[in-house]
Amino acid sequence: MPVFDINADLGEGFGIWELGDDLALLDVITSANVACGFHAGDPVIMRRVCAGAVERGVTIGAQVSYRDLAGFGRREMDVAAPELTAEVLYQLAALDGMARAEGGRVAYVKPHGALYNRVVRDPVQAGAVADAVRAYDASLPILTLPGSAVHEVAGGLTAVTECFADRAYTPEGTLVSRREPGAVVDDPATVVERAVRMAVAGTVVAVNGAEIPLRARSICVHGDTPGAVELARSVRAALAEAGVTLESFA
Amino acid sequence: MPVFDINADLGEGFGIWELGDDLALLDVITSANVACGFHAGDPVIMRRVCAGAVERGVTIGAQVSYRDLAGFGRREMDVAAPELTAEVLYQLAALDGMARAEGGRVAYVKPHGALYNRVVRDPVQAGAVADAVRAYDASLPILTLPGSAVHEVAGGLTAVTECFADRAYTPEGTLVSRREPGAVVDDPATVVERAVRMAVAGTVVAVNGAEIPLRARSICVHGDTPGAVELARSVRAALAEAGVTLESFA
Amino acid sequence: MPVFDINADLGEGFGIWELGDDLALLDVITSANVACGFHAGDPVIMRRVCAGAVERGVTIGAQVSYRDLAGFGRREMDVAAPELTAEVLYQLAALDGMARAEGGRVAYVKPHGALYNRVVRDPVQAGAVADAVRAYDASLPILTLPGSAVHEVAGGLTAVTECFADRAYTPEGTLVSRREPGAVVDDPATVVERAVRMAVAGTVVAVNGAEIPLRARSICVHGDTPGAVELARSVRAALAEAGVTLESFA
Amino acid sequence: MPVFDINADLGEGFGIWELGDDLALLDVITSANVACGFHAGDPVIMRRVCAGAVERGVTIGAQVSYRDLAGFGRREMDVAAPELTAEVLYQLAALDGMARAEGGRVAYVKPHGALYNRVVRDPVQAGAVADAVRAYDASLPILTLPGSAVHEVAGGLTAVTECFADRAYTPEGTLVSRREPGAVVDDPATVVERAVRMAVAGTVVAVNGAEIPLRARSICVHGDTPGAVELARSVRAALAEAGVTLESFA
Repeated sequence: MPVFDINADLGEGFGIWELGDDLALLDVITSANVACGFHAGDPVIMRRVCAGAVERGVTIGAQVSYRDLAGFGRREMDVAAPELTAEVLYQLAALDGMARAEGGRVAYVKPHGALYNRVVRDPVQAGAVADAVRAYDASLPILTLPGSAVHEVAGGLTAVTECFADRAYTPEGTLVSRREPGAVVDDPATVVERAVRMAVAGTVVAVNGAEIPLRARSICVHGDTPGAVELARSVRAALAEAGVTLESFA
Repeated sequence: MPVFDINADLGEGFGIWELGDDLALLDVITSANVACGFHAGDPVIMRRVCAGAVERGVTIGAQVSYRDLAGFGRREMDVAAPELTAEVLYQLAALDGMARAEGGRVAYVKPHGALYNRVVRDPVQAGAVADAVRAYDASLPILTLPGSAVHEVAGGLTAVTECFADRAYTPEGTLVSRREPGAVVDDPATVVERAVRMAVAGTVVAVNGAEIPLRARSICVHGDTPGAVELARSVRAALAEAGVTLESFA
Repeated sequence: MPVFDINADLGEGFGIWELGDDLALLDVITSANVACGFHAGDPVIMRRVCAGAVERGVTIGAQVSYRDLAGFGRREMDVAAPELTAEVLYQLAALDGMARAEGGRVAYVKPHGALYNRVVRDPVQAGAVADAVRAYDASLPILTLPGSAVHEVAGGLTAVTECFADRAYTPEGTLVSRREPGAVVDDPATVVERAVRMAVAGTVVAVNGAEIPLRARSICVHGDTPGAVELARSVRAALAEAGVTLESFA
Repeated sequence: MPVFDINADLGEGFGIWELGDDLALLDVITSANVACGFHAGDPVIMRRVCAGAVERGVTIGAQVSYRDLAGFGRREMDVAAPELTAEVLYQLAALDGMARAEGGRVAYVKPHGALYNRVVRDPVQAGAVADAVRAYDASLPILTLPGSAVHEVAGGLTAVTECFADRAYTPEGTLVSRREPGAVVDDPATVVERAVRMAVAGTVVAVNGAEIPLRARSICVHGDTPGAVELARSVRAALAEAGVTLESFA
């Protein structure tokens, strides 16, 4: 009986601005990647999302980012390693304080946006993130892609891999770049079917039609459109129906 | 044999900008009010100051502030209580994470600038700060003025009072406003003499010449000019010579 | 035949975050209060809104604010006059550059949020705003409430008054505070009827039932909910039907 | 009789924090690259520096940057072209407003820090900067390195080149990277001698000892240390003594 986690980005509003439906998603997912104020999120939002997660037994993760509110953390930045380590540590600790004030705790770390992509291929920034986690609590896993440089630099840390049912995969098991046609799978039924195959069979059908192995412990869903939340609900329902135990990795 | 604490504001640079001589002050004080990134301070600076404090056995406090880098936290802001609570909690937790990564911990909280002044007279904002401390760790004392509204709202929290050897006092024991002439005591010898009297006799000579009681457990010194550090050193030396045990309250 | 202006706040998103339907509103209003990046708005949004306004012949105004993205400019701040003047000048000039790059120009200034309310009663901050306008272009009118301190400090500047069809008025012609019950008029038909009376008769029915004079040259409508845009359209249609010429004051 | 310009970065404090001695430098230079608030500078500082420049007849340039106060604009960022264009336009217009309020105007544009380096080699970001200048005022020159991609994308714009007396040059006339030993020339007398040679002979002695041509119309000096200001004064004096007419290019 496979055990699988559903994660999503939460708390990505800022001040008056909202993004996504946090409460709706909290009823679907098992792990919440909560923004920590550097690309999105503010103390009020962070606290509210932590409270909602604790109430529902959803595991809280720190969605750490470059310091870039104006760019939503989506612009790659050449941040020196010691600075990146300190910035990640700051975010992680701030969110953990919020979580603990609400009776929970931060149980894992997931880099966001441009930092997520950068640490896949850059061992220096990946190492800087790992150093922050190690300095704060070496028992916290980092949620990342298979093949990420994070795995190389993790040292004693645990790196947990995630997959995306709505993204196309190359025959080598990496994501097709968003710049290429067909990078995103639009059909909801196909997304649901792929999610189940990922969780139950541990495979995905790559762009060349071959079914390839895909080792993942978590699937990432989105919630920034009403349709996305509905799709996330369908994924969850299909996974449950397929006998998958939904449980966080952390 | 009186026991007294010397506190100062530290880590108040930001990015490339420096303010004060943190390392020099760390050799003088027993408690460091470390800026948490809202009025000053950034993750790199916070971590460096925490490391220096831990190395020297200086107690670390969270110098929490309004969110106002451009105004250095010196402009009063009408922040609603739940938002202020969340903002203080965020700062407190972020600094505590830095301190713990360096082998220390945050041991007290001191509001900064306009927030410091506001909580003296505004029980709503004072209560918001107290709520944050209570939510994070109810054993942390708040460093404040005698007569501050913080004392009224502290509930189970400890409020520790501080004094200023370089500020004039009214006969009622409150600070003379900086807008009034003679609010600041400039002569170094007088400052040192007042500091000793505050620690040993527990009194201060008010503007009307009367010696009045001044209950304080800590004295605040400054370090943003070379002369200020030198004066702080003199205060420390004079206190030690007068037989005062220099020890943090936290 | 009365001439009246319809104004609304535009460009109040930031980065990835959106607020209100700028394009829909641009088809309704004659004057756009465009956020300048201090409480909302970023360079991309500012430029896009200016382009849309120029295309439709909508007059562009600078919606200047306290420097407070996290609080959307809604928290009163004790900013010193020279600093406030410089901040308003900065915003005004930045937006004017955007407008000119798109073939338009900033034609008036409207303070936002807490600054709007503050300058009604505080001649110091009102004077600071007026100084900025005077320093930039003394021909630009300031859009404000009747009775605002702006009128006292305007010197050679023009102060144009606006009214709100969805807000209750006291018998003295001031807005009923939002903290009081009945401060907001919810019924769309009543709002439309009040708008027409304001533009055609120059009066409003106050909370005590008396019809009082209300000298205004512009009416402020909102667009941050779908219903609000629909209501704004109804107001515009009713004004046109009542023979009001819709034209900006600037 | 050669005509040469001396430029320096000014107004690079922020809020309470200072950097460099703006007033001292204003007496040395002929062109002031004034920070516009994105990597440093705030409205009060911008206005004060503009006033000082106007008073002394120093030409004002907009020192435009990535939006990165925490990193002082020194971290390369992957900003999309339309966004970069809008951000540069915003900064340029804001500073021009300040300058005009003080009786001057922005007369040129110089990218700062990581953006300066990026536009040397990246025609996309260089083009984005050029687009902003073109949209605001196509008569404004851009101050840059010889060989910069800015020259390729300038279209009708003027690109003016600058040189550095305290930096080593390759035989190809490009700057030796700061990561390499010997990149910076430390000896004041050598710096002064190189400055004169650059202005009078239009050459520099490269790292291989060869004297190579170096076409520049301006020399960049620094002011962030007391020694730097003194050195800048020596450079100016030596240029004047060598018969060079000191005059801005703009």
